[in-house]
Amino acid sequence: MSYLACKDLISMAQLSVDDIQLILDTAESLKDISERDIKKVPTLRGKTVVNFFYEPSTRTRMSFEIAAKRLSADTFNLTASSSSIVKGETLTDTIHNIQAMHPDIIVIRHPSTGTPHLLASQVSAGIVNAGDGINEHPTQALLDMLTIKEKKGRINGLKIVIVGDIAHSRVARSNIFGLTKLGADVTVSGPPTMIPVKIEDLGVKVVFDPRKAVKDKDVIMLLRIQLERQNKFLLSTLREYSSFFGMTEEIIQYAKQDAIVMHPGPINRGVEINNSLADAESSVILEQVTNGVAIRMAVLYLLIGGQTSDNMH
Amino acid sequence: MSYLACKDLISMAQLSVDDIQLILDTAESLKDISERDIKKVPTLRGKTVVNFFYEPSTRTRMSFEIAAKRLSADTFNLTASSSSIVKGETLTDTIHNIQAMHPDIIVIRHPSTGTPHLLASQVSAGIVNAGDGINEHPTQALLDMLTIKEKKGRINGLKIVIVGDIAHSRVARSNIFGLTKLGADVTVSGPPTMIPVKIEDLGVKVVFDPRKAVKDKDVIMLLRIQLERQNKFLLSTLREYSSFFGMTEEIIQYAKQDAIVMHPGPINRGVEINNSLADAESSVILEQVTNGVAIRMAVLYLLIGGQTSDNMH
Amino acid sequence: MSYLACKDLISMAQLSVDDIQLILDTAESLKDISERDIKKVPTLRGKTVVNFFYEPSTRTRMSFEIAAKRLSADTFNLTASSSSIVKGETLTDTIHNIQAMHPDIIVIRHPSTGTPHLLASQVSAGIVNAGDGINEHPTQALLDMLTIKEKKGRINGLKIVIVGDIAHSRVARSNIFGLTKLGADVTVSGPPTMIPVKIEDLGVKVVFDPRKAVKDKDVIMLLRIQLERQNKFLLSTLREYSSFFGMTEEIIQYAKQDAIVMHPGPINRGVEINNSLADAESSVILEQVTNGVAIRMAVLYLLIGGQTSDNMH
Repeated sequence: MSYLACKDLISMAQLSVDDIQLILDTAESLKDISERDIKKVPTLRGKTVVNFFYEPSTRTRMSFEIAAKRLSADTFNLTASSSSIVKGETLTDTIHNIQAMHPDIIVIRHPSTGTPHLLASQVSAGIVNAGDGINEHPTQALLDMLTIKEKKGRINGLKIVIVGDIAHSRVARSNIFGLTKLGADVTVSGPPTMIPVKIEDLGVKVVFDPRKAVKDKDVIMLLRIQLERQNKFLLSTLREYSSFFGMTEEIIQYAKQDAIVMHPGPINRGVEINNSLADAESSVILEQVTNGVAIRMAVLYLLIGGQTSDNMH
Repeated sequence: MSYLACKDLISMAQLSVDDIQLILDTAESLKDISERDIKKVPTLRGKTVVNFFYEPSTRTRMSFEIAAKRLSADTFNLTASSSSIVKGETLTDTIHNIQAMHPDIIVIRHPSTGTPHLLASQVSAGIVNAGDGINEHPTQALLDMLTIKEKKGRINGLKIVIVGDIAHSRVARSNIFGLTKLGADVTVSGPPTMIPVKIEDLGVKVVFDPRKAVKDKDVIMLLRIQLERQNKFLLSTLREYSSFFGMTEEIIQYAKQDAIVMHPGPINRGVEINNSLADAESSVILEQVTNGVAIRMAVLYLLIGGQTSDNMH
Repeated sequence: MSYLACKDLISMAQLSVDDIQLILDTAESLKDISERDIKKVPTLRGKTVVNFFYEPSTRTRMSFEIAAKRLSADTFNLTASSSSIVKGETLTDTIHNIQAMHPDIIVIRHPSTGTPHLLASQVSAGIVNAGDGINEHPTQALLDMLTIKEKKGRINGLKIVIVGDIAHSRVARSNIFGLTKLGADVTVSGPPTMIPVKIEDLGVKVVFDPRKAVKDKDVIMLLRIQLERQNKFLLSTLREYSSFFGMTEEIIQYAKQDAIVMHPGPINRGVEINNSLADAESSVILEQVTNGVAIRMAVLYLLIGGQTSDNMH
């Protein structure tokens, strides 16, 4: 039995405020395990976590793998190229085959929106969405929220701006769902071609001018420019994007004095953020990575830990 | 000391009836470990299992890896592309190098017939054949036999037909050796170009017409069409194969009413089997996958578990 | 706290004689773990070892992975192709990201000289150099020294010749630093284009003629010809190299009668060494591989084992 309302973590849109709070609180309590001398607890011993990544990834895949092993679960890595996909098997058949080996959790990253949702209804293993197309990336939003909560003490009432290619960012969508649920005041900014029409329906404001967008904000959340996922015509040049929306100390000074700068990584120095700002005190980019392990430990624990006796510490 | 007569599992041709029975019985007793809350026993703690795959594979490699970890062995994955092979080392030198790191078992898949047999004589580690060219794939035959035994209560006296490219299938060869040893009545069927001459010498019947071949059978075992392993001229088109030998409800009705349909996977829907039959009650394809983990646990246990104190449960 | 003077193992040039002796002694005492029935001790349980390889490798990567797991550490493999490198992230950012997940050790192989040294100053994790360009490969030198010590009882005073492409070999450089520190009398040999000018400054002799170079030596250490790392014009043909410097029984007879022949592998039979000599009694190539696991266990233990209670046996 899962401690969450559902056997899967598919989207921030799906999670209740209580679910989010539970995940954040659990991650906070698990975080210190990674700072101990012996970074391992027996909580998920004998559990099987399969990482199934259709898109290349260093930090997300490794973050899940580290999270699983620090809870003593066994991990298995599958990639699209090594898989039966290349032999013509359908995704549904592949997932049923994995299920037949009795995993407890399948972490999946896939280029198509909705794939994790589709698979979740077909298998008894818990499905964790590690990014599906331009739809959602819920553990990224959760680790961002944990980082904000740690740095600011709360999320409710904070002024947060997300800057970049909002239209093609699963990170932006998951954060918008999560942050607005917890009462943050969310603004999005970027070139007009990168802001979806009717984005206001999700409860956010749109401010195109980066200085105005940043003004008085507590949190500046930058997005990665992912040229591979967007139509080349949307953006005349990287240089043009960078000259308008690349974050610099000059722009940041419009924000609150104690504002923090976030980025899901990997960063393109000189594109989304300039060199000195990336390394400044205000940047919490590496804390986000650290919190990623804690959030994934919490998610794995809450989805399958309830099945075992409670030996969390 | 191995519980089997030999330190290696190279072929079904090599195994005695008693060996096969021992593996099937052991797999049955280990199977429930994968269904427990804590899917792990300490039986092979401190043992080293190397998966060395020269051909891509999802389910077989992962099945061995899961089997090993559920018995608490440490696993290591080597692929041809990551290996010293690309640096010009001979296979023999590679295997001696792996041996020098003291593994207990080396699971090998290789495109050349006889490779596992050759290597077995050169190293003290146990060699498990995970498929060698068009020769043998013994753990696949064993998991098929376990599935048949579970579904039919026995193998002796059953009427079994294997349909497909018999000439190029290591799955067919291993099953023919195993099933005939245990007293099954085995028929093979497929296009004439795919049936080797003198196949009757292995103790099987040949029936070309699929309806006649299926008639009164208890088990319909389909083979995967592996275009990569056969001369293109043997088969005018996939569609032609499919229209004659693709299994459908219409053909299956000639079999016994409680006949089961098997396939080693990954399946090509619409080629070897039509969509509805693949998902029908009679299809035991996913049970085969589940039994694959149990069989590989049994094989690893029987080959190296005898070296340790008997803490199997 | 590390048992070594430094949190990292970057180079043999950096190590003191006492450090080297400590590593060799520790490796000797850990070596028998790999020969036990249960090849595992709990020494590094809960420790995280990341293998980060920018160049392909079978034996070195696997050797580190086996060493780590036999000490009960958790291991994670990153390769350049799977990593954020392909997404344009700088190496420094990648390493900071890995650090943010709190590994204890990062084992790195990189084509550029000095990379491990650079990274070591930036992260709190221990960095182990598994080969940086043509600079150093310290664990290879240590395993070579362990092998020599085992076979000859000592290193001090031994006459050792290194044959091959000295100019482009990190193995040669690390061995020269280590062996001369421990008092060996080291000669290098190879085609003039492969011997760096002023190599004598490192305390070695140069003898071009292979027979004269081998004369009266206790140890003949061959290097791998790595065409990928050298300018093609240095070497007219492999055949020419082989006919002059390929080691044969005819040349070896000039050495001491009990001389041993070493090679870091993978060997090119018929290039650096002829077939029969590679398999002769005097060849200790596979013992080198076995000692590689012991040396890496020792290095991991000495760098991070001091942090935990001393449960080495």
